[in-house]
Amino acid sequence: MSLFPCEAVKYEGPGSKNPLSFKHYNAGEVVAGKTMSEWFRFGCAYWHTMRGTGADPFGSGTASHPWDDGTESITNAQNRARVFFDFIDKVGIDYYCFHDRDVAPECATLSESNKALDAVADVLEEEQKRTGKKLLWGTACLFVHPRYQQGAATSPNAQVYAYAAAQVKKAMEVTHRLGGEGYTFWGGREGYTTLLNTNMKRELDHLARFLHMAVDYKKEIGFKGQFYIEPKPQEPTTHQYDSDSAACLNFLREYDLLEHFKLNIETNHATLAGHTMEHELTVAYEAGALGSIDANMGTPNVGWDTDQFPTDLYLTTQTMLVLMKMGGFTTGGLNFDAKRRRESWEPVDLVHAHVVGMDAFARGLKTAAAIRADGRIDQFIAERYKTWDSGVGAEVEAGKTTLAGLEQYALANPEPMVASGRQEMIEGLLNEFI
Amino acid sequence: MSLFPCEAVKYEGPGSKNPLSFKHYNAGEVVAGKTMSEWFRFGCAYWHTMRGTGADPFGSGTASHPWDDGTESITNAQNRARVFFDFIDKVGIDYYCFHDRDVAPECATLSESNKALDAVADVLEEEQKRTGKKLLWGTACLFVHPRYQQGAATSPNAQVYAYAAAQVKKAMEVTHRLGGEGYTFWGGREGYTTLLNTNMKRELDHLARFLHMAVDYKKEIGFKGQFYIEPKPQEPTTHQYDSDSAACLNFLREYDLLEHFKLNIETNHATLAGHTMEHELTVAYEAGALGSIDANMGTPNVGWDTDQFPTDLYLTTQTMLVLMKMGGFTTGGLNFDAKRRRESWEPVDLVHAHVVGMDAFARGLKTAAAIRADGRIDQFIAERYKTWDSGVGAEVEAGKTTLAGLEQYALANPEPMVASGRQEMIEGLLNEFI
Amino acid sequence: MSLFPCEAVKYEGPGSKNPLSFKHYNAGEVVAGKTMSEWFRFGCAYWHTMRGTGADPFGSGTASHPWDDGTESITNAQNRARVFFDFIDKVGIDYYCFHDRDVAPECATLSESNKALDAVADVLEEEQKRTGKKLLWGTACLFVHPRYQQGAATSPNAQVYAYAAAQVKKAMEVTHRLGGEGYTFWGGREGYTTLLNTNMKRELDHLARFLHMAVDYKKEIGFKGQFYIEPKPQEPTTHQYDSDSAACLNFLREYDLLEHFKLNIETNHATLAGHTMEHELTVAYEAGALGSIDANMGTPNVGWDTDQFPTDLYLTTQTMLVLMKMGGFTTGGLNFDAKRRRESWEPVDLVHAHVVGMDAFARGLKTAAAIRADGRIDQFIAERYKTWDSGVGAEVEAGKTTLAGLEQYALANPEPMVASGRQEMIEGLLNEFI
Amino acid sequence: MSLFPCEAVKYEGPGSKNPLSFKHYNAGEVVAGKTMSEWFRFGCAYWHTMRGTGADPFGSGTASHPWDDGTESITNAQNRARVFFDFIDKVGIDYYCFHDRDVAPECATLSESNKALDAVADVLEEEQKRTGKKLLWGTACLFVHPRYQQGAATSPNAQVYAYAAAQVKKAMEVTHRLGGEGYTFWGGREGYTTLLNTNMKRELDHLARFLHMAVDYKKEIGFKGQFYIEPKPQEPTTHQYDSDSAACLNFLREYDLLEHFKLNIETNHATLAGHTMEHELTVAYEAGALGSIDANMGTPNVGWDTDQFPTDLYLTTQTMLVLMKMGGFTTGGLNFDAKRRRESWEPVDLVHAHVVGMDAFARGLKTAAAIRADGRIDQFIAERYKTWDSGVGAEVEAGKTTLAGLEQYALANPEPMVASGRQEMIEGLLNEFI
Repeated sequence: MSLFPCEAVKYEGPGSKNPLSFKHYNAGEVVAGKTMSEWFRFGCAYWHTMRGTGADPFGSGTASHPWDDGTESITNAQNRARVFFDFIDKVGIDYYCFHDRDVAPECATLSESNKALDAVADVLEEEQKRTGKKLLWGTACLFVHPRYQQGAATSPNAQVYAYAAAQVKKAMEVTHRLGGEGYTFWGGREGYTTLLNTNMKRELDHLARFLHMAVDYKKEIGFKGQFYIEPKPQEPTTHQYDSDSAACLNFLREYDLLEHFKLNIETNHATLAGHTMEHELTVAYEAGALGSIDANMGTPNVGWDTDQFPTDLYLTTQTMLVLMKMGGFTTGGLNFDAKRRRESWEPVDLVHAHVVGMDAFARGLKTAAAIRADGRIDQFIAERYKTWDSGVGAEVEAGKTTLAGLEQYALANPEPMVASGRQEMIEGLLNEFI
Repeated sequence: MSLFPCEAVKYEGPGSKNPLSFKHYNAGEVVAGKTMSEWFRFGCAYWHTMRGTGADPFGSGTASHPWDDGTESITNAQNRARVFFDFIDKVGIDYYCFHDRDVAPECATLSESNKALDAVADVLEEEQKRTGKKLLWGTACLFVHPRYQQGAATSPNAQVYAYAAAQVKKAMEVTHRLGGEGYTFWGGREGYTTLLNTNMKRELDHLARFLHMAVDYKKEIGFKGQFYIEPKPQEPTTHQYDSDSAACLNFLREYDLLEHFKLNIETNHATLAGHTMEHELTVAYEAGALGSIDANMGTPNVGWDTDQFPTDLYLTTQTMLVLMKMGGFTTGGLNFDAKRRRESWEPVDLVHAHVVGMDAFARGLKTAAAIRADGRIDQFIAERYKTWDSGVGAEVEAGKTTLAGLEQYALANPEPMVASGRQEMIEGLLNEFI
Repeated sequence: MSLFPCEAVKYEGPGSKNPLSFKHYNAGEVVAGKTMSEWFRFGCAYWHTMRGTGADPFGSGTASHPWDDGTESITNAQNRARVFFDFIDKVGIDYYCFHDRDVAPECATLSESNKALDAVADVLEEEQKRTGKKLLWGTACLFVHPRYQQGAATSPNAQVYAYAAAQVKKAMEVTHRLGGEGYTFWGGREGYTTLLNTNMKRELDHLARFLHMAVDYKKEIGFKGQFYIEPKPQEPTTHQYDSDSAACLNFLREYDLLEHFKLNIETNHATLAGHTMEHELTVAYEAGALGSIDANMGTPNVGWDTDQFPTDLYLTTQTMLVLMKMGGFTTGGLNFDAKRRRESWEPVDLVHAHVVGMDAFARGLKTAAAIRADGRIDQFIAERYKTWDSGVGAEVEAGKTTLAGLEQYALANPEPMVASGRQEMIEGLLNEFI
Repeated sequence: MSLFPCEAVKYEGPGSKNPLSFKHYNAGEVVAGKTMSEWFRFGCAYWHTMRGTGADPFGSGTASHPWDDGTESITNAQNRARVFFDFIDKVGIDYYCFHDRDVAPECATLSESNKALDAVADVLEEEQKRTGKKLLWGTACLFVHPRYQQGAATSPNAQVYAYAAAQVKKAMEVTHRLGGEGYTFWGGREGYTTLLNTNMKRELDHLARFLHMAVDYKKEIGFKGQFYIEPKPQEPTTHQYDSDSAACLNFLREYDLLEHFKLNIETNHATLAGHTMEHELTVAYEAGALGSIDANMGTPNVGWDTDQFPTDLYLTTQTMLVLMKMGGFTTGGLNFDAKRRRESWEPVDLVHAHVVGMDAFARGLKTAAAIRADGRIDQFIAERYKTWDSGVGAEVEAGKTTLAGLEQYALANPEPMVASGRQEMIEGLLNEFI
């Protein structure tokens, strides 16, 4: 059976001139105590890979999907799902992620849409069994349909909110049925376009209530997967409430939701927020809230979410450094929330894109492992903070000091000076491993 | 006595061709139940007005300060303080703000610096009595001196931290002595330049401990002023922990500091964070944490903090809309954390700058008051959310709903649709009042 | 006949509470020697007003177009054109602009598409006669269809280039037939997404050859309208060759095209290029190449082309200041290349949007006229450069100086100093008129 | 003699754990037909390395310069120059660049400043002879002194212009005397902060006249070095006329200066202009105007010129790809216009920084050479444009086609389609070589 028009991708190792093969990613290869596939838990994003057309605000779709009959029928949706599993099987990705409306059509009524989703879920379940692939997380699409134009859980319209709640309930059920290891909330329309027509407080209260209902329902149905929320600052909505890791954490703390949610951090969302990916990952990690990663990257000179496949080896190294510090994922994974460029329109470009991304992470993992084994960077950091390990520093950390006490210390001691931060040396050190 | 070389600025009203007079700001004029001076509580920033040289990364200072003898002597500092009070008296500003090292010199030892600060504080106290001017807030400069190059409360060096603590203790004491209505913490160096050499968690723990010590000391000395922290994302340090309102609130919540701090929001910091000023103000306000405002604005096509005087009438209107919703300031005020352009180097440019800024806020206040009196925008917002006032919306707000219940509602009701957001109409409505 | 579901918009003057009326724009009112309609020559953009759906990269269309039967039939296209003329008649816009594929459908073959375009052009011609409306400029859409995904006149594929040439030929013919006063080239796909696969020089040579062929054909058919090219930096293509005014002028100079083209400057394109609208207008004006304006504006905190309706009175004032300096348009006009927000989805929002934009420009015109009549800003500028009117300055301007001569002058004269730029004073002066 | 406190840096090759040694840069190693030192012609920037203090807008200098006595004396300046040559000798850099006011003090009069410059030039000449080091280019600092606050060659004040002319004359003479291979014009203050007080046309005319005088004087004194202008968009001046490569070329073409100038492209200036370095390099190269490179890089999430040392291997590879296509520099070189971070304040950080930068370029060179030797990327590009090598494409390139002829071609041929751009595959290919 060859549903997706390509051969299975193989590991041929560095030096291979075959662009359709792995040069670095080798699923079973052990790095720092785990296999590559255990470290990465790669996921494929159904929306980009199967439903991405290449359309942009100035042009219609370009992607060739020869398996697709172009209709919104359930049969076509089911067939597409089978092609998808063939694809991830061939490229060797173990997990996938989907929105309800990616896998199944939006129908005339909610009831029909639910039935369509069930019918496609039958095939997803079959295919999971056939291939051994697993669901990393599911989610509901609450941003494409016009009813959600002004928000879903933050809509000014309570009927729209109810509809969104119904859609999330169903998407959670399907995720549960398919053994999903997580469920993601991304609030692409949860925000505002202008404060001139917006009641921010009321919207945030509604959003918190929505998430509490989801927590309750999760318990009710016994779904054990992890809940994630996903930061993004300004697209599609001019201002989104979940603008970055800190904004998400602040919201979760304010509304007593922090114990129930972790963050799903996406590279291009981090950079649009004016941060780096490693910053957003570290903020989440230090709060005990780094759950999963949407792996992609942006184009530096444009101001929107290009969702490119991650090929930058600095990015993959930095990502893996945080991930290795955490000991790897629990429920999460590296989901390629990434799309081919509009100009890469042939099916084989999907293979190139995933292979290139997986290889880039394999190199990132090996580089990060080498940096950790080498130890010089960690040692430099430890040394940099050594004044905190004893004396006045240790007293501060132990909570034993006061401003008055520290003043006495400062008055009694010579003018302090901090050692060089050695940024250039340490960047050179990083380059030794890239 | 004419220390500052200009005449007192007068209110001449609209139509005056005298650029050195107020056309809109009239301290005693009542708008919406308060005088203008009560609404604004304008503050003058000692650092910009008295110590700003006009230097930038590519050029040395340009500002002419004919009263300044160019030395770092205490006498010169005291004389400068007297000129300052003459200046704010002439332009009719009631409050001022300072850093310890703006008003008094940094000396060879902490002990000498403290004495110098006391000596200048004597003059500040005298001048406050003489003129009736008040201290809006004081602060310690923990970012100029090389010892703070890698942070103060987040320095990797514990001795530097102790020194910073001593400096804050003294600055709080002086602020308390001068009747300061607040004390601000701005963490310009509290962050990192590269995560490659940084232990973020340890730094944040130290920062929190620092602030808790300040809270304790505040109680100890009976200082009743409000504590503020001030968000800013990326300047001077590549990444600052207090990057925006949400990041500050998240930090304060995490470390149990929220009851002790409010935010001091600065326009150009808001815009550098990728937000609007009205967003940052609203986030702080809705959290009950909007304390004070650093009034300025940026240049849209450059990526750093230009601290220009606020002249944009949209900005001043939006700021006043939030402020009027809050009922005005309690302890805070509108501090002009703003500097003349480097090319506006004559003393009279300081007068122009403050007059233009105060007039812009006077227009913002009148515009905001008119918008509120007119009521159409508020009414539009209320109408937009009316589905939440009864029925299913009211049930959600009352916490009575579940996902299952909302699903039943959605299945039983027709496809919902949200009314037009009418953004263009409402922007036109805003323009009616500008 | 009421094709577009609204009443004709009337001028009710300031104070009117009717949002569906002009408060400032009065077509026949004379300002500074011309009527408002002569100054503005407002154009309506067929693509946004008739074809804009409100879709964005994360959501499908929201706009309600009750007159549209949803098909791509010629009859529907013709009917839509009649609705359009009814709309611009009702809102009082004198000009319109279109792309070939906005007004008529893209058919299975070029030959059929040409026929469809002719059939719709018949109706456009009829409607122009019936209403007296005129065509500001026409253009060919060379960016939506997948064939143009990698460029049209810069496509790596010569057959695509030929197709684009054919499409431009036809669009020029139709524009000529309809008495178009101009023809615009916008190169949304003329650029590259990565230099790794691009031959920039070859693409630019092809583009220049394309435009030379268009110049030749213009002469051949006797079309007297003005050719425009339109700068934009990075959307939809990561890098577009015509990135800003200077880039366009450089290209036109290099390939001997400058005499044949003027620029059509768009606000949000200017801001995406890191400039201001007044900068781009001034660069074009000073080169004698300011032809026409695409009037809109962006959202400051997002990084893409939001094409909002221009409501900022600073923007409209600055635009009119340049335009009045130029003495107004010759062939060009103020084309509203602007769309309602996605959330403003009802037909009446189109009326609001255009009314608000026209009123904003009416205020900009009156403000600019008042500033010019007042004369203080112009006088300040003249004064600022007065050292160039005589002495060494005049000699430099006359081309009589050498470095050696100027060195002698500098050695013989005291250290020079430039007067204050008075930026704050002059911004206050501007505010007097807003 | 050990003026600069470090040992000479050696090549120890990959794997060396000594951070103070080269791991990749080996001056005499031949790559693609030239030695590394011939390819790079590395230059050291006197201003950053010797005069950079680490000050930023929020803090004073941090750098330790133990050889500097802190005075503005000529003796100190001469001694500093000797330390500089010791430094570049030890790190193995062959060229240097300077501004007049970096090497020698600004004195009370122009005449004294000139004498001071001569006195330091005596030492520079001696040191050049002693060490064999050469001057890549010289320049005049026309942006630090307050007199230039509103521009030098575009100052509104003609006396300031004359002073700038005198300064350039002298700097050219000194550059000529020292055998400089080029002379650079960087217009950091040539632009405006607000158009409200600016006559753009008059300023640009003055600038062009200034450069023509420089061209004349160059001939007069027989200086054979190359003139460069250097693009930068917005810092320190809000808008600089030479904003990017295209803006520079446009200006040079408009004022008949193109034959006399090439461009000196700086990485962080390219990125601040919203471009990539490879874009700016390619634009200059394709215009025959790529002269020299200021090698550095920026921090992506900040909006100003951080002038970091270039360590990104993608950047160095892309730079070397353009440079190898050009066949290497003629008069230009890779000048490290780069500074250590403010936190890297010890002298040894200067060594680290240059070593890391040189190593990064050595890897970039080897990577670029390998890519070119492999040939797959070049071949892909050639293949992508193959429809232009014959048939209708070749006819277009030969200038034999018309719109009508191309229309006939398009009507007679099937719908064209362009092949996939294969961006992901080609990015993977690039990664094979990094």
